[in-house]
Amino acid sequence: MPPATHHALGTAAVKELELVRELAEKNASKIVLFVADGIGGLPMEPGGRTELETALTPNLDRLAARGTSGSSVPVLPGITPGSGPGHLGLFGYDPLEFKIGRGALEATGIGFELGPHDVAARGNFCTLDASGTISDRRAGRIPSEESFAVVEKLQAVRIPGVETFVKPVKEHRFVVVFRAPGLDGRVADTDPQAVGVAPLDPQPLDPAATKTAEVAKEFVKQARAILAAEPKANGMVLRGFAGKPALPSYEELYGLRAAAIAVYPMYKGLARLAGMTLVGTAQSLDEQIDELGKAWNDYDFFFLHFKYTDSTGEDGAFAAKVKRIEELDAAIPRIEALKPDVLIVTGDHSTPSRLKGHSWHPVPTLLVADTCRPDGLDAFSERACLRGGFGIFPARHLMLLAMAHALRFGKYGA
Amino acid sequence: MPPATHHALGTAAVKELELVRELAEKNASKIVLFVADGIGGLPMEPGGRTELETALTPNLDRLAARGTSGSSVPVLPGITPGSGPGHLGLFGYDPLEFKIGRGALEATGIGFELGPHDVAARGNFCTLDASGTISDRRAGRIPSEESFAVVEKLQAVRIPGVETFVKPVKEHRFVVVFRAPGLDGRVADTDPQAVGVAPLDPQPLDPAATKTAEVAKEFVKQARAILAAEPKANGMVLRGFAGKPALPSYEELYGLRAAAIAVYPMYKGLARLAGMTLVGTAQSLDEQIDELGKAWNDYDFFFLHFKYTDSTGEDGAFAAKVKRIEELDAAIPRIEALKPDVLIVTGDHSTPSRLKGHSWHPVPTLLVADTCRPDGLDAFSERACLRGGFGIFPARHLMLLAMAHALRFGKYGA
Repeated sequence: MPPATHHALGTAAVKELELVRELAEKNASKIVLFVADGIGGLPMEPGGRTELETALTPNLDRLAARGTSGSSVPVLPGITPGSGPGHLGLFGYDPLEFKIGRGALEATGIGFELGPHDVAARGNFCTLDASGTISDRRAGRIPSEESFAVVEKLQAVRIPGVETFVKPVKEHRFVVVFRAPGLDGRVADTDPQAVGVAPLDPQPLDPAATKTAEVAKEFVKQARAILAAEPKANGMVLRGFAGKPALPSYEELYGLRAAAIAVYPMYKGLARLAGMTLVGTAQSLDEQIDELGKAWNDYDFFFLHFKYTDSTGEDGAFAAKVKRIEELDAAIPRIEALKPDVLIVTGDHSTPSRLKGHSWHPVPTLLVADTCRPDGLDAFSERACLRGGFGIFPARHLMLLAMAHALRFGKYGA
Repeated sequence: MPPATHHALGTAAVKELELVRELAEKNASKIVLFVADGIGGLPMEPGGRTELETALTPNLDRLAARGTSGSSVPVLPGITPGSGPGHLGLFGYDPLEFKIGRGALEATGIGFELGPHDVAARGNFCTLDASGTISDRRAGRIPSEESFAVVEKLQAVRIPGVETFVKPVKEHRFVVVFRAPGLDGRVADTDPQAVGVAPLDPQPLDPAATKTAEVAKEFVKQARAILAAEPKANGMVLRGFAGKPALPSYEELYGLRAAAIAVYPMYKGLARLAGMTLVGTAQSLDEQIDELGKAWNDYDFFFLHFKYTDSTGEDGAFAAKVKRIEELDAAIPRIEALKPDVLIVTGDHSTPSRLKGHSWHPVPTLLVADTCRPDGLDAFSERACLRGGFGIFPARHLMLLAMAHALRFGKYGA
C-alpha cells in the first residue's frame, strides 16, 4: 500500500487500512453508501429544530428503528472539511493522512481524470501592465465565455515530451495539467498575492520537482506570447501544483467492485480517486436510482451522491434544504426494493443553512442491515443520532462497519 | 514548533497542533474558559447524587439548554491527572506528549517564572548523622518557619557563571533553580529513598547534562558547609530536575491573545507556560470577574480559574463543595453580561469528595455559543453531560471546539 511506505512507523489510520486488507473477504453482499452532501444542520433559532429535524422523513425514521445510528466526525472535532477531505473520510481514508492537493482537486472537480504521471495546477488569469507587473489579479473578473475562448487559444502550447491539458473552470479560473514521466507536484505557487509586482517564476520546492518547474516555466512563457494581445487575460498565476494522490483502491483494500453514481464532476472525480467505476449519466436522483438498478448485478458497492442538501445549505435556504431532505427520503423505498445487505445514509459534513457553508458539526449517520443491534431510536435526526449505537465516531470508521455488517470481514486473530 | 522536531513523523497530537496552526484565523470573537478545578464528583452513597447534581445551579442549567455538553477525559480513561497535565489538556496540549518535569512544576507552583536557560529541582531537607548518612528523610518534619530561615541561609551559595535561586515551599520542601546557558534537566535524583545511606551525588543521565550535574554537586557541597550546624536540616536531597517545557504559545498556535485570571500561583504558572498574560491581582471570584471586564477589550481568550471546587473535594467536604459550585453558578450572569462568543465551563479533572483527591472520572463540560447544535439537555451535571452533544471526548480537543464555535478556523481542504 503506497502510503505505508511514506510512513515507516505507520500511523493509526494506515495500520487500520493494513488490517482491512488482511481481513477483507468476498461474498455476494451489496452495500449502498447514500451520501446526502452536507445533510447535518443547525436550528435557525436557539433551541429550535434543524433542517433534518424539521423535514418529514417517514422512510428514514422507519429505517432508523431497524438500523443503528451514530454521529460521524469528518476530520476531528471542530474541524470543517471541504468536499475532498469529507468524502475521503467516508470512503475510509483518514483525511489527515491522505491529502488531495489543490490542483489535483480542482482538476478532479471539473471531471478531469488524473493519471499517475500527471501534475495539475490551478490557474488564474490576470492582467499585466506594460512592464509585466500585475494590475488586476482576476483579469477584470473576465466572464466565463470570454475566458473559455482564451483557454482555447492555450491549446496551442507545445512542450516537447510533455502532454499539456488546459481546461476552463469558471471566470478567470482554469486548470492546467502536465503529463510526462518524472513530474512531481512540489512546485511553489507563482502567485505573488499582490498587484504591482510580476508573477513569480515556478520554483521547485524539492530537487525532484526541478523538471516540473521547468515545464511550468515553459508553459507560462509560451502562454504569455499567445496572450500578449488579450485586453484582460494577458497573464496568469499558477497555484497548488499537485499530482494524483496515492489512494489504495476499493478493490485492493476491501475487495469490493465499487460503482459511483453521481451527477456532479467533483464527486465523480473523488470516487475515481478511490478506484470506483463511474456508472451512467444520471442527471437526477430518480435517474441515479435507475442506474443503481441497472448496475446492481455488476458491483458490490455503490456510492450514490445527492448534492442538493449541501447546495441549499450553502445558500442559507432552510426551507429548500428541508424539501430536499424530504425528496431524498421519498427515494428510499426504491433503494430498499433492491434489497441491499447494507444501506448507509449519511453526509460528508454538515452544511447548516444558518452558517451558509460547511461546518464542523458531527454528521447524522444511519446503517441498516440484518445484523444491526437495536439502539432504541425511532427517528433519523441530529438529536436522535447522538443516542445511536455507533456513538460519535470518526467518519473513516464507517467503512469498517459497512464491511462488518456485509459479513465481509474475517476474524482478527484466533 | 519544538515538539515536532522531537517526533520526525509526528504523533496524532502533534499533527493536530500543526493543523491548528494552519487553520487558525483571527476575528473579533471572545472566548472564556472558566475552569472549576476538580468540579467532577461522585455520590457519597451508591446511587446518590454527586456534588454537582446536588448543587442548585439555575444559571448553568439554563446555559446547558442553550449550549452543547460533554464529558472530557483529561489524559486517558482511568488516568488521574495532577494539576499540570489536567490544565495542559484543557489548554489543548496532549498531556502525554507535553510533559512538565516535577522540578519545573514545583517552581511554577510557587509562582517562580522559569526562563529558557533554567533547570529547577525539588529539594527536601533531611537530617544527616556524623557519618553523613540520612537519619531522617524529612528533617524531623521541620515547621515551615524554621525551614524558611534555613532557605534564607542558602542564598549565600555562589557558583561562578550560574545564577542560583532557592525558594521555600512548605515544611522540609524547597525549590532550587539554576540559571546558566547550556544547562539540561537530565540529572538523576539524589534521593536514595532510604535512611542509613548517604544522599547520592547528582549524576548526568545524558552527556548534555554533565554541566548541570556539576553545578548541582557544587550547590550541595556549599549548602552542606552552610548547614553543618543546623540541628535538623543539615542535609538535602534533590529530585525531579527539569527545564521549562517547550509549549508552543497560544498566540503562535491559535493566534489568540490570551489572558489568565487566577488566584493561585500554580495556575498562573501553568498559564504562563502556554504564553498567556497574567492579568490583575484578584483574590476572589468576584474580583476575577472585575478583572475579566477590565481586560475584555485587550484579549481574545480568557482563562478564569476557580480553585475551591478542588480544595473542598480534597478535604472530603461534600457540602462545602456543593456550596462552592453554587457560588460559581451565581457568578455566571456577570460573565454572560460581557457577551462572550464562546463560554466554556469545565474542570481540569474530577475531585470527588468521596475520594478526597483527584480522580480519573470524566469531567462535565459545557460550551455555549450561537453555533451550538441542541443536544436536548436542560441541566449541567455528570449524568446530563453523558448525553451531551460532544459525547465523551479527550480534553485536548476542547480548544478545537472553542476555536470552531468562535468561527476562528478556516476550512480543511477544498
